[in-house]
Amino acid sequence: MSPRTATGAAVLRTEITRDISRAVFDELVEHGYARVSMEAVAKRAGVGKSALYRRWPGKRDMVIAVLADFSVPRAVLPDTGSLRGDVLALLHGLHEWVTHPAFGRILADLVAEANRDPGLAEATHAAVGEPRRALAADILHRAIARDELPADLDVDVALDVLAGPLYWRVGVRSTPATPDYLDRLADFVLRALGA
Amino acid sequence: MSPRTATGAAVLRTEITRDISRAVFDELVEHGYARVSMEAVAKRAGVGKSALYRRWPGKRDMVIAVLADFSVPRAVLPDTGSLRGDVLALLHGLHEWVTHPAFGRILADLVAEANRDPGLAEATHAAVGEPRRALAADILHRAIARDELPADLDVDVALDVLAGPLYWRVGVRSTPATPDYLDRLADFVLRALGA
Repeated sequence: MSPRTATGAAVLRTEITRDISRAVFDELVEHGYARVSMEAVAKRAGVGKSALYRRWPGKRDMVIAVLADFSVPRAVLPDTGSLRGDVLALLHGLHEWVTHPAFGRILADLVAEANRDPGLAEATHAAVGEPRRALAADILHRAIARDELPADLDVDVALDVLAGPLYWRVGVRSTPATPDYLDRLADFVLRALGA
Repeated sequence: MSPRTATGAAVLRTEITRDISRAVFDELVEHGYARVSMEAVAKRAGVGKSALYRRWPGKRDMVIAVLADFSVPRAVLPDTGSLRGDVLALLHGLHEWVTHPAFGRILADLVAEANRDPGLAEATHAAVGEPRRALAADILHRAIARDELPADLDVDVALDVLAGPLYWRVGVRSTPATPDYLDRLADFVLRALGA
């Protein structure tokens, strides 16, 4: 094969993967994790089931790969140069993630399903939770390096304090969080961290 | 009727209500809110559907009444005499509520379902969320009265900071929270509140 043909095939494969990912996402929004099937995803994406099984061993891995692709890059944050700027960027990014009209539903379904399926909980943790948490920890380590936070900061608790209040408000209590609210929350978080 | 007969009937009604509540709870654990039906609850409780409809106009009100009965009394906290004691009591109570083997599942299902059903979200908010939040606010008002917290405390943010990190950890991330963790979290919360 010429390089050109190889490129064409690669492009085609990427496009198919993208179509499948969209179909997974749409199926999750409409039906929730428990009722999504490989059949329905294949049909929606306009591909054969074999195209799915060539990429992932089954439904769980397929769903988690799609959600990780959606979720992890959104947790990559710029270094704003200050802890306050970084915390605000994190809160705005988290807000966008949790209140995304389609993904917000998917996330809530997934949390519920993970309560019934420890394997799903563990896999989601590994592919989505931990990478996002490591990215958030970067903010804390940068602030320690800048002497904005104590070197013996309890990072484990700090990360829960960074994400928890906003998730509780918008993801559980379904209560809006205005930009002004995020500013006020940042004040609480900075005090909590000992900044 | 003699007073004695009236009391007997009242006791019977209370027992039937208790049986129905247990049936609602068990159906919710096994099947999740979306798949619970009045028929299944009546059958499980060993009563006719009319016994349910005499008490509640429909499934939503029935479920919410049962969950409020379970959830609101658990948020009534003793006055320990100090903000730190009160915050720790709240965190321990919240931990018990969210990690209750049956209720933890019900709660996660309910949050997911509320994402698809704004009426359910609103009703849960009114019957469970708001009363629990008012009870938590008592802690803050007591601390303000004791001069442990500033009088101009941002109570709205403070309540999210009290509950959010622990829910995020155990309810979303499925990560254990040891008593030592709760102690360390209390340190963060107290700093956040400006204590």
